[in-house]
Amino acid sequence: MIYPEEFQQLMDSFKNFPGIGDKSAERFVYAVDELDNDKIDAFSKNLQDFKKNIKRCSVCGHITNKDVCSICSSENRDKSLICVVEDSKSVFMFEKTGKYNGVYHVLGGLISPIDEVNPEDINLHSLINNRINNDLSEVIIALNPSLEGETTSLYIQKVLEKKNIKLSRLSYGIPMGADIEYLDPLTIIRAIDDRKFLS
Amino acid sequence: MIYPEEFQQLMDSFKNFPGIGDKSAERFVYAVDELDNDKIDAFSKNLQDFKKNIKRCSVCGHITNKDVCSICSSENRDKSLICVVEDSKSVFMFEKTGKYNGVYHVLGGLISPIDEVNPEDINLHSLINNRINNDLSEVIIALNPSLEGETTSLYIQKVLEKKNIKLSRLSYGIPMGADIEYLDPLTIIRAIDDRKFLS
Repeated sequence: MIYPEEFQQLMDSFKNFPGIGDKSAERFVYAVDELDNDKIDAFSKNLQDFKKNIKRCSVCGHITNKDVCSICSSENRDKSLICVVEDSKSVFMFEKTGKYNGVYHVLGGLISPIDEVNPEDINLHSLINNRINNDLSEVIIALNPSLEGETTSLYIQKVLEKKNIKLSRLSYGIPMGADIEYLDPLTIIRAIDDRKFLS
Repeated sequence: MIYPEEFQQLMDSFKNFPGIGDKSAERFVYAVDELDNDKIDAFSKNLQDFKKNIKRCSVCGHITNKDVCSICSSENRDKSLICVVEDSKSVFMFEKTGKYNGVYHVLGGLISPIDEVNPEDINLHSLINNRINNDLSEVIIALNPSLEGETTSLYIQKVLEKKNIKLSRLSYGIPMGADIEYLDPLTIIRAIDDRKFLS
């Protein structure tokens, strides 16, 4: 064993993280070695606090430290507008824009028959059974334009069709700052399909 | 505050690490969210164990969990051969080769007048005063070929000159697997200077 035991074990912990192999883990352990004791204590306390207190919102499934997340419990949000997203990462992305004032529903996954992920394996039941009612003004689907995203979107569409709820999805098209010259043909096709009439 | 408090604090802890900005820290927190509780516990325990038990070898300055590191206390190592390195990272690199059987001396830095790092600011005193004696067969300098490395090397050379100890440094030259076509001129010059006579 080349490394001291505590060194090796801390390396192994870092290797649980995405994209972290031997080299990066070693670099992180050296970084720990240079941290103040206070910061190391804070780090291990923060890990424990996260483990203990972080859960999923009982209404929308978003990551939170309360039973009902701050978005669902806010009086300033429009509860009649639900944006359906794959995960909490999407919620944080939307929140960073500061422009969306509705609430969310976090599926925690997407339907994928190949991976044996069925509708009942994701957080869909609580959307359909608890949150869909005639007070809703609109449901916006905001899922990735992947096979799984489209499958899930279609499933939701079929279920909601019967309930007479206004349903929309995010537009596909040219991302801001992009150069049309470098886009893939599929994006161009989608941008044409979703084109916006100006007059 | 977009993130739950525990989420934000754990993100801040990850941002203490080299190369970790907002995006990567967020990604690591999601990874923690998907870890088993056991692994989170192990992680925070490993941080504490590292903080508590990891220190510097009282002989050579290498990172260790004992007073004297396993290399300095090994009966199989040649104590008359000391390899002087900048940090413990170099020791681990040398150990991985499995070919070096001497011991080390870890400076924990390099002399750098510009950064106001003087000889007394690095772990040189204990090398010169405690470890240099007539029983030594050789001291190998294994420092980076940077300005600071060369300055430190020169300083050690001057001190040891008076003590009549055989001194060497690693050869500079073409790294294995490299293509001469793509090397920088300085490396070529060093490879000529350090050339090895075959007959």
